[in-house]
Amino acid sequence: MKKVHNFNAGPCVLPDEAIEAGIAALKDFKGTGMSVIEVSHRSKEWEGIMEECESLWKELLHIPDGYKVLFLGGGASMQFLMVPYNLLNKKAAYLETGVWAKKAIKEAKGFGEVEVVASSADTVYNYIPKNYTIPTDADYFHITTNNTIYGTEIKHDIESPITLVADMSSDIMSRPIDVSKYGIIYGGAQKNVGPAGVAFAIVREDILGKVSHYIPTMMDYSVHIKDDSMFNTPPVFSIYIMVQTLRWLKKNGGVEAIHKVNLRKAELLYNEIDRNRLFVGTAAKEDRSIMNVCFVMKEGYEDHEEAFLNYAKSHGMVGIKGHRSVGGFRASIYNACPIESIEALVKCMQDFEKQILG
Amino acid sequence: MKKVHNFNAGPCVLPDEAIEAGIAALKDFKGTGMSVIEVSHRSKEWEGIMEECESLWKELLHIPDGYKVLFLGGGASMQFLMVPYNLLNKKAAYLETGVWAKKAIKEAKGFGEVEVVASSADTVYNYIPKNYTIPTDADYFHITTNNTIYGTEIKHDIESPITLVADMSSDIMSRPIDVSKYGIIYGGAQKNVGPAGVAFAIVREDILGKVSHYIPTMMDYSVHIKDDSMFNTPPVFSIYIMVQTLRWLKKNGGVEAIHKVNLRKAELLYNEIDRNRLFVGTAAKEDRSIMNVCFVMKEGYEDHEEAFLNYAKSHGMVGIKGHRSVGGFRASIYNACPIESIEALVKCMQDFEKQILG
Repeated sequence: MKKVHNFNAGPCVLPDEAIEAGIAALKDFKGTGMSVIEVSHRSKEWEGIMEECESLWKELLHIPDGYKVLFLGGGASMQFLMVPYNLLNKKAAYLETGVWAKKAIKEAKGFGEVEVVASSADTVYNYIPKNYTIPTDADYFHITTNNTIYGTEIKHDIESPITLVADMSSDIMSRPIDVSKYGIIYGGAQKNVGPAGVAFAIVREDILGKVSHYIPTMMDYSVHIKDDSMFNTPPVFSIYIMVQTLRWLKKNGGVEAIHKVNLRKAELLYNEIDRNRLFVGTAAKEDRSIMNVCFVMKEGYEDHEEAFLNYAKSHGMVGIKGHRSVGGFRASIYNACPIESIEALVKCMQDFEKQILG
Repeated sequence: MKKVHNFNAGPCVLPDEAIEAGIAALKDFKGTGMSVIEVSHRSKEWEGIMEECESLWKELLHIPDGYKVLFLGGGASMQFLMVPYNLLNKKAAYLETGVWAKKAIKEAKGFGEVEVVASSADTVYNYIPKNYTIPTDADYFHITTNNTIYGTEIKHDIESPITLVADMSSDIMSRPIDVSKYGIIYGGAQKNVGPAGVAFAIVREDILGKVSHYIPTMMDYSVHIKDDSMFNTPPVFSIYIMVQTLRWLKKNGGVEAIHKVNLRKAELLYNEIDRNRLFVGTAAKEDRSIMNVCFVMKEGYEDHEEAFLNYAKSHGMVGIKGHRSVGGFRASIYNACPIESIEALVKCMQDFEKQILG
């Protein structure tokens, strides 16, 4: 059972069941007499885990035929590089909605022209740009659906005339998506789908093999597809916990069911922010993320920031300090964050308000 | 306590103490009330683990000033690519001692000319080529010190007139080395230093920054050095178990002490192979690996291979089937493989010999 209210931005809270399964497998993996980190990745026992992992992904996201789900080392940052390596022939289009999008843009520039179709950098990324034009002569259009640091989110599948690539590190599996609208969806696992150490990439196979430059082996999605993410030794334990996390999600009704819970959790917290006389949200209301809730002290109450952080900490809240580029507070309320934690945070905000304003 | 005799080639047997520490940290990490896979990698508790990890490496291998130890995702296969990205301007020299060396060569070819100074491919890599000349006009010379599949090993620090780069995936920390002779030493963790999911790279800083081509961010050792392996979220749990594995090694006398044990373990097994009328070693005697012991049935007894595998399996041996390219048997006897397991395997070989030959 959780001992603190964990609002960490990632690595973050995970289901107790997944952690307990990890402990059991560290002791003995499937009756092999070995720990899960001591078995061969070429054993039938381990191969069963790899197969289950991909099939849970396909089931939970209703992934259509023609897509492969990969599990790779290096994190989303490595995907910033793998995407242009595999797709960028001449030109790519990117939507700049935060620091992670900016980092993805930087990597793409090593491979060709990059057109940034729109950016919200002017207001510290506190909104999602709209009314931009996606150039039809680009090889792909890249978006970051959820912006962890700024608490903004593209909450629907956008229409793109060219291959759509999405970094969904921090909102994958939090809401239903239509995978068929995307060429690649990738992300680090350490929010909704497991611990750090593994990245996922959902790749539509027919978009590959079209670049003219050389692709190094480890950068080549085709290589990993051919070998079912086992071209080299996979990050075993991270994948094991990913499977357990997805099992938990499936048992709890899958993505559709958790989406409803996530909406309720986010509503609860945003309502308090909007009601409370001390706090104000930082993201444009229509773009508010249901995963990362960012807020600051209202004008005139900035001096109470440190005091609120300490007050929340003394009531068991962990990880609510905002990113240094935004300041204030951020509550990351991923799938495994129980509604009780949000209720506890809301109560903290209310009690603190009473303390200050009576 | 170990329930089987684990001779897996990697992932492989790990110290019980390291696994137990992993279990404890999954339950609660340093009294944070969170699992080690739920804490922020930017927390002071986690940063302490990163610092301890590098300092254990430096202490155990007596790494001199001017070197940085990195902990990265992607495995040794990613290092095959990172090495030429960071060092290869015009030409590199490689020693081809097995399939892994060959894979490293393939990646280097994407960046310039590669001179293979010698190869033992002609005899299925059953020896280490000697008497080759290292070209002084190459940017670096790359060796694979231990060849897991073939059971050969370069057991001493070689002299190189140019920057020496070594893949030590499967013999790092098994024997003392003089790090000052190397520019880069790298490897996957999943033999002597931890579970799968993290690679190490010991990098001499003054060899960097000399290539003229563009280096993508995640490929750039300098980026990871600057951020102490935390440019992006590190593979947390794998690093945690690495620290525990190194703590165990330190407690047991360090690399010098384990080297003596490793020599005894290898001698015990090779002596039995040489004595036994049924088996014969596959590697040239002077190049025999102290980590991976490869042997086959003697001529005339090939039909008994399957029977011996089954016999050994029924006596609790795991992972002794040889790699498909060599056939026969392979016992990987890494640091954490207890001498009792080798004694048990030797007894199996003796008992089986009696069964067949009386």
